[in-house]
Amino acid sequence: MRNIAMVVSYDGTHYEGYQSQPSGKTVQDKIEEAILHLTGERVKTHGSGRTDAGVHARGQVINFHTKSRIPIERWGLAMNTRLPSDIVVSHAQEVPADFHSRRSAKRKTYRYTLQNSAFPDVMNRYWSLHIYRPLDVVAMKQAISYLEGEHDFSSFCSTGASGDSRVRTIYKAQIAEWPNENSIGKQIVIDITGNGFLYNMIRIIVGTLLQVGQGQIEPEQMQSILVAKDRSRAGPTAPPQGLKLWNVEYGEIQLPT
Amino acid sequence: MRNIAMVVSYDGTHYEGYQSQPSGKTVQDKIEEAILHLTGERVKTHGSGRTDAGVHARGQVINFHTKSRIPIERWGLAMNTRLPSDIVVSHAQEVPADFHSRRSAKRKTYRYTLQNSAFPDVMNRYWSLHIYRPLDVVAMKQAISYLEGEHDFSSFCSTGASGDSRVRTIYKAQIAEWPNENSIGKQIVIDITGNGFLYNMIRIIVGTLLQVGQGQIEPEQMQSILVAKDRSRAGPTAPPQGLKLWNVEYGEIQLPT
Repeated sequence: MRNIAMVVSYDGTHYEGYQSQPSGKTVQDKIEEAILHLTGERVKTHGSGRTDAGVHARGQVINFHTKSRIPIERWGLAMNTRLPSDIVVSHAQEVPADFHSRRSAKRKTYRYTLQNSAFPDVMNRYWSLHIYRPLDVVAMKQAISYLEGEHDFSSFCSTGASGDSRVRTIYKAQIAEWPNENSIGKQIVIDITGNGFLYNMIRIIVGTLLQVGQGQIEPEQMQSILVAKDRSRAGPTAPPQGLKLWNVEYGEIQLPT
Repeated sequence: MRNIAMVVSYDGTHYEGYQSQPSGKTVQDKIEEAILHLTGERVKTHGSGRTDAGVHARGQVINFHTKSRIPIERWGLAMNTRLPSDIVVSHAQEVPADFHSRRSAKRKTYRYTLQNSAFPDVMNRYWSLHIYRPLDVVAMKQAISYLEGEHDFSSFCSTGASGDSRVRTIYKAQIAEWPNENSIGKQIVIDITGNGFLYNMIRIIVGTLLQVGQGQIEPEQMQSILVAKDRSRAGPTAPPQGLKLWNVEYGEIQLPT
């Protein structure tokens, strides 16, 4: 059996998230259908993370075991001709038998994109959250800086099993203005790299940063929200369409980012 | 009667072009429906240019005459709440009675976007043409330079009435690489500014530039194609999804671009 890893990008707009569902309207279902069509095998794929409905990916990593002898350099194109146009395999490589896209992951980066302009940018509406009020990016940069390091992120986690550890490490949390091709207002990108993320963690962080950017809370309050370990202290969960799983890193195994 | 001009951006993916059709599935129909809903008036709007099915606009300019007394600063938001999310009014202003968005236009700029990468960028697929073979941008830049100036552009015009003049002036024709937010391959933008364009002119120019970029013809051949005044000498018509009406200029009347 070969273990094959693939880097996959997708537009999550029309899917019920990454992970397989009985409805079949998920990215994982489409990928497994394409592999079945290509090889005749019903394989189970593993994704590095379960993106929610409406969340996108630039560099999701999946892996699966197969008996197929199709040469590795043919997999990308062969998959893409069998996948819908909103899912693209950009890379495929053979990995050691024990490689697991989720368990082997060392660092993951998510990007959340804000479109800050009086009117929405139609060309950017699928990939960003439109905020019409001017955002105070300096205050947002200060607020996000408190999140770097190892912390209990309970304040930024939707309710779940209480026994599990909520401690995670954020290696890097940055906010930058990105040139908007259409020159409409400002495009603000929030990049967060960590060793793992709790359920809805990025979207709750963004919801809280938006309160800072709109002057509803002070940037310093990010610290007290963090130490409170209380979900009710943080802001609302930002909507999914601004979020992209940006890339996943695996230490020794190098995948293109 | 007031004469109101608006700057409108739209995602043309799901429309049968700008100009009104019996089907009602055009941008103009949606705009006139929104005005009817807002004012109770059935107005006829004029667009600066008739973008084809699938072509987008960042800065289409329209105008119409109305008896409505709605203050000018309210029009943008009032229209946007009545328009589908793929059409956005970004500016409205009152203009002199004789202003006509098409006849008064002095210069128009179109942008055609190419996504040049081994695999398509899912986040860019609605707004660009994906070309998987590496393009020779230097050769394309040389080829496009021959088009600047006043010329008979018959070679770059889909068949139409033969009596009309095919002479147009291109003030500026430039190719640049634009940073792709997703860092996937190269994004190449072709910007062409002129006093007017023949039917399919930009898309035929782009189709010819693609032949240059892929080494099928030499950049110098752009000159002989131009002087031949023969449509069959130029390349194929590039597909609509890469094309955007970028902005329209009116001399004395200043609209935000």
